Amino acid sequence: MIAGSTRATTGETTPVTYCLALLTDTGVVVAADSRTSAGPDYLNTVRKLHRWSLADRHMVIATAGNLATTQETNAELDRAIADAGRESLATVGDLWQAATHVGQVLRATIDRHRMALEADGVAGEASLIVAGRIGDGDPGALLVYPQGNAISATPETPFLQIGESKYGKPMLDRLASTDLGLDEAALLALVSLDATIRSNATVGPPLCIVTLPRAPGEPAEVVLDEGDPQLIAVRRAWESGIASAFAALPAVVI
Amino acid sequence: MIAGSTRATTGETTPVTYCLALLTDTGVVVAADSRTSAGPDYLNTVRKLHRWSLADRHMVIATAGNLATTQETNAELDRAIADAGRESLATVGDLWQAATHVGQVLRATIDRHRMALEADGVAGEASLIVAGRIGDGDPGALLVYPQGNAISATPETPFLQIGESKYGKPMLDRLASTDLGLDEAALLALVSLDATIRSNATVGPPLCIVTLPRAPGEPAEVVLDEGDPQLIAVRRAWESGIASAFAALPAVVI
Repeated sequence: MIAGSTRATTGETTPVTYCLALLTDTGVVVAADSRTSAGPDYLNTVRKLHRWSLADRHMVIATAGNLATTQETNAELDRAIADAGRESLATVGDLWQAATHVGQVLRATIDRHRMALEADGVAGEASLIVAGRIGDGDPGALLVYPQGNAISATPETPFLQIGESKYGKPMLDRLASTDLGLDEAALLALVSLDATIRSNATVGPPLCIVTLPRAPGEPAEVVLDEGDPQLIAVRRAWESGIASAFAALPAVVI
Repeated sequence: MIAGSTRATTGETTPVTYCLALLTDTGVVVAADSRTSAGPDYLNTVRKLHRWSLADRHMVIATAGNLATTQETNAELDRAIADAGRESLATVGDLWQAATHVGQVLRATIDRHRMALEADGVAGEASLIVAGRIGDGDPGALLVYPQGNAISATPETPFLQIGESKYGKPMLDRLASTDLGLDEAALLALVSLDATIRSNATVGPPLCIVTLPRAPGEPAEVVLDEGDPQLIAVRRAWESGIASAFAALPAVVI
């Protein structure tokens, strides 16, 4: 646990935050919680989804890990966009180039502080999900590791997770498919996030969900706070459905 | 990852195995998978549930962690039982004393090998669940940590988990209750185990489930291998129920 006096320079400890992306035939969903923490006595709310709409493209980045690292990375991505002479999210030709660019900025940020953080035994690592659509290209999503390399969501495994990913994985394993409609994928992201919130105090609302359909569709976003009637309605329906599914199980002879 | 040449002396790496216990008003359920591993190229099947029926008592221990540690611990528990002059699972007066006894044996086993294992960078730790019923006492379950101390399942949190516990926790958080019948608790343990198997290759069948009812009921056990018709039937019903619950969720406006 990080001592109080170092919080301002070290950002959050791990594992906190849960972000995911779902790839479907009709678009991409990116979703995240909003909990940040430097220990259980220092929980705050920070937005983990960052969006850019630039000329012919829409980009969404979800962040998990050291908060100082992810905020500095975002600031550098913004600076690159503002400087017309540099490679940036505004100039990359496809989503893999976007992930590579983001990975370079992320790794440079981590390296900049590595020695100071390691001297105090603090991890500066962060992982990102980079999703987007460039021109008329297909929407897609990639997971960028702290080392700057990346993997893409694929039709066989159409989801990516960063942060506290285990609690929310069983329902993705059972229900995620590129056949889902974009609204269904958003609901599945919500179910996966809500399972994580229920089981782990370091992940919490508001929940942000962004949908990015194929061109020419526009991205859309919803932010669900703890008391949001839509979140409560989904929760109640899911709990009731789970209870019914459990009650309908055949008995095992023991 | 442990090199091949050291496997025989170091037991398994972590995290593998998933064991849990559920406390209900009518008894206790203990369940475990049977996967052991010293790396993904060395997966084996080992029973994780160990049972003793001794005069006025039934004891069940579930083990997760370094396999050499857990097997040596069990051997020492057996030696203590065989020696009428020593404290053992046969002599302890209640379940807390049982957990304390097991914890002392576990910690002594870990300490015996600590220097040699640490010299090779290997963790010798293990965690155990100790469940049982002594005389006409209530059935109960405790989690014994590698340091030898323990916590008990309680009515508010009527489940204990060791090993790879995150994937199987969301359904316990939603459904576990002391109001469950013993057969229902066994089904819930199966659902929790199956979620973990689906999401993590280091946890696998056969699945062992032991039920221990209040006195004068006798303990019972079922072992479900991968192709067991009962396991397949529960899996199919659960997947179908989950799909129905998902399909019935109210739409979220995005």
